[in-house]
Amino acid sequence: MITVEEARALLFDLVSPLPGETVPLSDAAGRVLSQDVEATRDQPPFAASSMDGYAVKSTEVELHAMFKVIGESAAGKRFQGSVGPGQAVRIFTGAPIPEGADFVVIQEDTERRGDLITISDLPGPKTNIRPAGVDFTVGTKISAPRRLRAEDVALMAAMNIAAVPVSRKPVIALISTGDELVMPGDVPGPDQIIASNTFGLKALLEEAGAHVRVLPIAQDTVSSLRTAFELGEGADLVVTIGGASVGDYDLVSDVSAGLGMEQSFYKIRMRPGKPLMAGRLGQAAMVGLPGNPVSAMVCGYLFLLPMVRQMLGVEQVLTPFQTARLTEPLDKNGPREHYMRATLDETGIRACRDQDSSLLSVLAQANALLVRPPHDPALLAGDKVQYLPI
Amino acid sequence: MITVEEARALLFDLVSPLPGETVPLSDAAGRVLSQDVEATRDQPPFAASSMDGYAVKSTEVELHAMFKVIGESAAGKRFQGSVGPGQAVRIFTGAPIPEGADFVVIQEDTERRGDLITISDLPGPKTNIRPAGVDFTVGTKISAPRRLRAEDVALMAAMNIAAVPVSRKPVIALISTGDELVMPGDVPGPDQIIASNTFGLKALLEEAGAHVRVLPIAQDTVSSLRTAFELGEGADLVVTIGGASVGDYDLVSDVSAGLGMEQSFYKIRMRPGKPLMAGRLGQAAMVGLPGNPVSAMVCGYLFLLPMVRQMLGVEQVLTPFQTARLTEPLDKNGPREHYMRATLDETGIRACRDQDSSLLSVLAQANALLVRPPHDPALLAGDKVQYLPI
Repeated sequence: MITVEEARALLFDLVSPLPGETVPLSDAAGRVLSQDVEATRDQPPFAASSMDGYAVKSTEVELHAMFKVIGESAAGKRFQGSVGPGQAVRIFTGAPIPEGADFVVIQEDTERRGDLITISDLPGPKTNIRPAGVDFTVGTKISAPRRLRAEDVALMAAMNIAAVPVSRKPVIALISTGDELVMPGDVPGPDQIIASNTFGLKALLEEAGAHVRVLPIAQDTVSSLRTAFELGEGADLVVTIGGASVGDYDLVSDVSAGLGMEQSFYKIRMRPGKPLMAGRLGQAAMVGLPGNPVSAMVCGYLFLLPMVRQMLGVEQVLTPFQTARLTEPLDKNGPREHYMRATLDETGIRACRDQDSSLLSVLAQANALLVRPPHDPALLAGDKVQYLPI
Repeated sequence: MITVEEARALLFDLVSPLPGETVPLSDAAGRVLSQDVEATRDQPPFAASSMDGYAVKSTEVELHAMFKVIGESAAGKRFQGSVGPGQAVRIFTGAPIPEGADFVVIQEDTERRGDLITISDLPGPKTNIRPAGVDFTVGTKISAPRRLRAEDVALMAAMNIAAVPVSRKPVIALISTGDELVMPGDVPGPDQIIASNTFGLKALLEEAGAHVRVLPIAQDTVSSLRTAFELGEGADLVVTIGGASVGDYDLVSDVSAGLGMEQSFYKIRMRPGKPLMAGRLGQAAMVGLPGNPVSAMVCGYLFLLPMVRQMLGVEQVLTPFQTARLTEPLDKNGPREHYMRATLDETGIRACRDQDSSLLSVLAQANALLVRPPHDPALLAGDKVQYLPI
């Protein structure tokens, strides 16, 4: 069995950054920029006033100086003439500074009577002018890769970048396996339960930027599982859930091997989630997750999300662990790395009481996975531990 | 002028939680649960094995005890008979415990020859049985309001909740105003710039769960702005950007007043973003944001996001400020609350050099708004400050 770290390294070998595509700016938020983009203009495109006031010559600015207002410069409607000695132009925030002027006296520092203004408070040295190009100039870059936030979208709009190159969304096919499973909304038989992993993983992966195809539930037969794999054709990543150990043989492993899957590893020294399998299946990566609901979701956080980020080409593929102090003691850990469901608040972190990997109700209350290294000794309240926020 | 806190209180009076709607489970992630939902079944629906092994009577479990294997219980295919004395049923993880059995000996603790198994390692007291209903039972509630995470979706699937009651998405109409504005992709005239606020705010508000309608840019005329307001009909919240002070009069305020807007407040004692106006316009709330790009986005974080959360009915409407230590000193603050663009990393927080409210390039590099109270004294590196993550 390999460690979580070794498994992740092997998983990254199975996927590569995907090619880019172009989306309209209004759809770019949350996507990953796949190529550097450049401003096609200067911002502001002209020296602009940062205040409402009067544009004048700076050499003439002194207390009680008087100016004749010869026109107006508004955003979008520049004053066409030139400001001469003793002249001023009424100007508004964002408007172009007229020729001949190099200072804006803010309106609060002036008194106006008809066409005449007088400086009634001596302005400081601030010109209240934003030079052309102070925000950015033609060629200013936004460097890829970058997950685009609202602020980036605003900046790209200002740069007049209407179409944005982003990484294609990874397509992930999810196959739940098991005779016991029916879909939500169906009426389960007495021995059956509802498929929950598919829906939880779909939500998790889509939030991370993937496009998820939910395939029909595969029964525990070779032909049913084979059909599901065929429906997964074209996906970048095929994920099976359950079926790792059915009856006395390993159905997923056998069927995928029959379809030419080159296995990368099988089983990880961790809890929950030990029976995890991965390999390459034609053009796609393939991961076989355990069927216990909590195991499947924890493996989603630890393995599938980093694979999605790798395919999106983001720089930080692994979410770094964070540190918190225990509010309750913990027993010693066994030989496997343990990812305990835990709740974190301002007082610290505490493992949930019941760590059984079937308990979705516990997982839904948790907001962190508390990481125990193999053979971690018993810990006391106040001891530092590492965790992954979920 | 009022404070940020007073403005927020007044804004909350303008919006109320919206009615609910029902969405399919697969679309529920990220939405806000609007009514309690209840499990329609027990999970597991039967006592189930938590391991692969043999189901036997616990009173017969001792080292070297021998059992006859009389059948198999798999997930989805229960063993139909009853386990008698000296008998065992092969059982797999998740499968129903057969009648007559109350203990599962894991397969690693047994030796099997033909139909006979022998206990080769004495098991501990753990029965390896998950009682029926240990995860949840009929009637177990998920309480509203709750922003639904992937884990909640998985849990609701297991509960067989196929249709989920969620708050309707608030509809927000965005109106950018100004003769100087053109849309991204257009060719701006020499005095024009690209409308960036609309795109940044759309991304911000949609990520928070709103549905955004981008209306045509309004020119700086009464008729153009009035047309834009008419196109905003039916929105829960109408947001104008810019136009608060055009020429020597307040266009947005005048036009909206003419349409019957009841003003709640005008101007907030803050930087950036002072000229912010809000009120009620027919069935909708209305907010007039300043036109400077950074001011508009900062007001989006401080005012619009909490309004969206209020309409979604979430419990925590305000994002609490967090605390960090300065890595560089700060000058004293003036009379207005100041939200400085800042960068936060593991070493601490530092305000960006240029705080001019026109600089989108600075905002795009920032990941926090550093909060300065009015008249905050000069601060040294190492001093604690409050911030809002962005």
